[in-house]
Amino acid sequence: MSELRGVLPITLTPFTDDGDVDEASIDTLVEDYLGAGAHGLTILGIMGEAAKLLDEERERVLRRYVQATAGRAPVVAGVSARATRMALDYARRAEDAGVAAVMLAPPDNTKNLDLVFEHFRRVAEAVSVPVVVQDEPVNTGVTMPAPFLVRLLDEIEGCRYLKLEETPTLPKITAVRKAVTSPVGIFGGLGGVYLYEELLRGADGIMTGFGFPQVLVGTYERFVAGQRAEAQEYFFRHLPLIRYEAQLGVGGVTIRKQVFARRGAISSPHARFPAPPVDDITLAELDDLIAAVGL
Amino acid sequence: MSELRGVLPITLTPFTDDGDVDEASIDTLVEDYLGAGAHGLTILGIMGEAAKLLDEERERVLRRYVQATAGRAPVVAGVSARATRMALDYARRAEDAGVAAVMLAPPDNTKNLDLVFEHFRRVAEAVSVPVVVQDEPVNTGVTMPAPFLVRLLDEIEGCRYLKLEETPTLPKITAVRKAVTSPVGIFGGLGGVYLYEELLRGADGIMTGFGFPQVLVGTYERFVAGQRAEAQEYFFRHLPLIRYEAQLGVGGVTIRKQVFARRGAISSPHARFPAPPVDDITLAELDDLIAAVGL
Amino acid sequence: MSELRGVLPITLTPFTDDGDVDEASIDTLVEDYLGAGAHGLTILGIMGEAAKLLDEERERVLRRYVQATAGRAPVVAGVSARATRMALDYARRAEDAGVAAVMLAPPDNTKNLDLVFEHFRRVAEAVSVPVVVQDEPVNTGVTMPAPFLVRLLDEIEGCRYLKLEETPTLPKITAVRKAVTSPVGIFGGLGGVYLYEELLRGADGIMTGFGFPQVLVGTYERFVAGQRAEAQEYFFRHLPLIRYEAQLGVGGVTIRKQVFARRGAISSPHARFPAPPVDDITLAELDDLIAAVGL
Amino acid sequence: MSELRGVLPITLTPFTDDGDVDEASIDTLVEDYLGAGAHGLTILGIMGEAAKLLDEERERVLRRYVQATAGRAPVVAGVSARATRMALDYARRAEDAGVAAVMLAPPDNTKNLDLVFEHFRRVAEAVSVPVVVQDEPVNTGVTMPAPFLVRLLDEIEGCRYLKLEETPTLPKITAVRKAVTSPVGIFGGLGGVYLYEELLRGADGIMTGFGFPQVLVGTYERFVAGQRAEAQEYFFRHLPLIRYEAQLGVGGVTIRKQVFARRGAISSPHARFPAPPVDDITLAELDDLIAAVGL
Repeated sequence: MSELRGVLPITLTPFTDDGDVDEASIDTLVEDYLGAGAHGLTILGIMGEAAKLLDEERERVLRRYVQATAGRAPVVAGVSARATRMALDYARRAEDAGVAAVMLAPPDNTKNLDLVFEHFRRVAEAVSVPVVVQDEPVNTGVTMPAPFLVRLLDEIEGCRYLKLEETPTLPKITAVRKAVTSPVGIFGGLGGVYLYEELLRGADGIMTGFGFPQVLVGTYERFVAGQRAEAQEYFFRHLPLIRYEAQLGVGGVTIRKQVFARRGAISSPHARFPAPPVDDITLAELDDLIAAVGL
Repeated sequence: MSELRGVLPITLTPFTDDGDVDEASIDTLVEDYLGAGAHGLTILGIMGEAAKLLDEERERVLRRYVQATAGRAPVVAGVSARATRMALDYARRAEDAGVAAVMLAPPDNTKNLDLVFEHFRRVAEAVSVPVVVQDEPVNTGVTMPAPFLVRLLDEIEGCRYLKLEETPTLPKITAVRKAVTSPVGIFGGLGGVYLYEELLRGADGIMTGFGFPQVLVGTYERFVAGQRAEAQEYFFRHLPLIRYEAQLGVGGVTIRKQVFARRGAISSPHARFPAPPVDDITLAELDDLIAAVGL
Repeated sequence: MSELRGVLPITLTPFTDDGDVDEASIDTLVEDYLGAGAHGLTILGIMGEAAKLLDEERERVLRRYVQATAGRAPVVAGVSARATRMALDYARRAEDAGVAAVMLAPPDNTKNLDLVFEHFRRVAEAVSVPVVVQDEPVNTGVTMPAPFLVRLLDEIEGCRYLKLEETPTLPKITAVRKAVTSPVGIFGGLGGVYLYEELLRGADGIMTGFGFPQVLVGTYERFVAGQRAEAQEYFFRHLPLIRYEAQLGVGGVTIRKQVFARRGAISSPHARFPAPPVDDITLAELDDLIAAVGL
Repeated sequence: MSELRGVLPITLTPFTDDGDVDEASIDTLVEDYLGAGAHGLTILGIMGEAAKLLDEERERVLRRYVQATAGRAPVVAGVSARATRMALDYARRAEDAGVAAVMLAPPDNTKNLDLVFEHFRRVAEAVSVPVVVQDEPVNTGVTMPAPFLVRLLDEIEGCRYLKLEETPTLPKITAVRKAVTSPVGIFGGLGGVYLYEELLRGADGIMTGFGFPQVLVGTYERFVAGQRAEAQEYFFRHLPLIRYEAQLGVGGVTIRKQVFARRGAISSPHARFPAPPVDDITLAELDDLIAAVGL
């Protein structure tokens, strides 16, 4: 049933050197992602610095991404917010802009899971596009055990996808797959470091910010074509780079932007302050790794 | 030097039963606060559900509060945000609307204090109104030791006030007062539970959301008039109620709104979801306490 | 059914000025607690610096407390530990020493509540004395919602008591009381700041470290004698002091020890490092409050 | 100057199926580690379930490890504790047993770095063996910025080593190396996932619990022999396995013990409860990876 599947990169939000939203770079960025074979785009996520955007900027990013993608691939928009009412507003605007789905995490630090359930229910019932449930305990402070995720997916009609980010993702993919009764698409994350095993466990794809989506695509396509050994070999070959990038975590947006800027996909590597400063040695190590894996 | 002093309640953001911003209730609420003798208002703080407002709503709340106050008392506007750029935008808008100061907390989970310092510096230098440094470790996840607060206050010209919220506030007031060399206004918090001792330690007032600001005003005015024994006696007499309300913490906005709604200061007790549900026994206990302390 | 009831102070572990366990001071301390009318003692809790004791010291503290109490009141011993096996060992030793019950919190940061349940089950089944379930989210990092606490109390025969410490305690007392079907004793905490309301909600007593247990006893005894107005008046009269002490929280052991040392209940105010240093002004304020409330 | 260097695995604490400390398995385990070429052993760390041991068990593990190693390699013993006094006791016992160094992390949740500094100072001054400063923010809740680590290493004579565990380790290695003026040995961690780059940044070795220490040794030895390309190639070849194991983190002790048990290095894979249950698919995936990398 899964309409979303494959590699849907968590996309960047490009800025000019002065820190303004750089809409022109969204256009080139979309071509970069689609050129790499991405099966869709996940915009306005954490790596997209969504929490660092004013509402007006968020709207411009949303509209430009959808417009630049022009129906060539599904666009999923992050709509997480502290209040259900805000998430609803973001979700309706995303739906109106033409996204294929919205991605929603629990409101920060809402440890009462009954309130979290109701949050998802209200947003899912208010829009006609499906909801991707985002499991993101480190950033939200909310731990959602597998049985709770299954409840969300089985009891709320609109919750049709799950994107996992809690380390480790693998047992959770298995636990959800075993217990869930509705048709559900599951996506991995963690920078792509466990992509091959996530697919083996039954993931339908991945949503992550890794700077070379073609590597994730190459792994995924071989895998779904039944070429497991080739998929594994291809994945392992690129693992040194995937792993290196993954260490940078969320703060890593600064450095990921350098990667995209150097290949011309965006005009400036500017990330919004506060963000950890770029470390020259890290950039050099990254360059070496890019060369080492043959990209 | 302190222009801000006394009791500046952290104000509510009133909503209609449907959850829309209720601008008319801002007008009545301002009269309620000023009628209670408040020396100023602190809008768009945590108790004001600022993080649950869209930017457009935030702007309307800001403008309406300034307009309703009409220069009768200084208005301080919260401008905390995840990105310096957003805080700058909020601060400039607040300045433009005519506030007396802006209140700024560190960006969430920014444990690198060099980045936090720079965040305060950039915002303080961009506006002509003073900045109230908000120490709020529980909600921001950022611990700012007293020497760091002193650095902010001494080295950044615009940082002229400090609002403390970390438990306990008392030793921190003393530590900052001893070490700071620039003229600085210090405000307590914690629901008013330690107001008398905060004043004894050298606080210039308090910013807190307690539902009966006249009690804080009554304590403060006696204290600054030199009537310490009377101030203490008055404060202790109302302590059962202050303490009861303080237990509710931030989640307590639901119940505080009931208090204001029942005396007609706002049209509806609606708080934005997710918020803990109201407990009937709590309301009854609160009523008993209000009666017990003679309010 | 409740054998434990009333005021069971969380007791100190006294040290000499050199930091050794001071067994002689346990004797005088027990007389101080019982002289204040305490209905029991809760030893080896957080305020008792239990996590700062070697096993051999823990054993000596346990034995001396039981011996000094000499059956005049029930002794509850904290047995919380990172491993079930350790908690089992502590619990068996406590049982062997003659305690009336053991108090157990979840292992630190064990967010999987199935593991937490099993932890309680194993310990409860291994000893013949009842288990006091300790809800302590701030120190353990484990949030136990009311329905989970009810499961522990109803499904594990030995779990017969509950000691609450999560702010606010009041709605949780009500929620557990409503849902639990087995006879259960519930104890409040939070330094005694909500004792009167905790009793109104159905608490059977309190376990807390407040330095003047006679005040808690005086409130409790009036309350259970049906003198509610007197209980409330008495409680409110002492609230300024209770509240002041409560701000100090766990770090407050340093200052609580000063209180006990000055009235001769222990020979030295020594607390084990690292502990926040004593603030002279705090001591002075405390003295003023003690005088102000007439103690 | 560094006497400790190379690969010093964080060793397991073996238990029998019944959960008793299995001293005989310590003997076989030591042979396993040394047979893999380990340059030393780091006992009683987090992966060694040190916090799940009674003091008496800790002492037996310590003595048996030192005895089994018999001077063939330096033994470093973890001595972290909630109280300085406990850490001192553990450190003195470790020194008495004949360890080469002790490893110390900050007391849990001690966010006041002045207290943390004093904790390290007191322990370092009480023993004649050097102290390995352990930077472990996830488990301790204490963030130590690079300048603070440099202060510890430069100002406290006994603090001669640093073991990093905060993600990412790489910029921190560089920052400390640049600023530190005393001769200091730096060790990486994170399961070995960044070993090659850690060495490039100036690390003197690694302390980690990865189940195949020979792979870390093989990388390290090639590196220090000046064969960088070979070291990198060798490291990358084994990365799929290193990375897989690293996902398991601390909870991973359950599965690591399976790895050691299956090759006969310990008699039972028993880990102390609470520990996450073993997942069969994980074991199978691990087997496949072991085969895939040719171990």
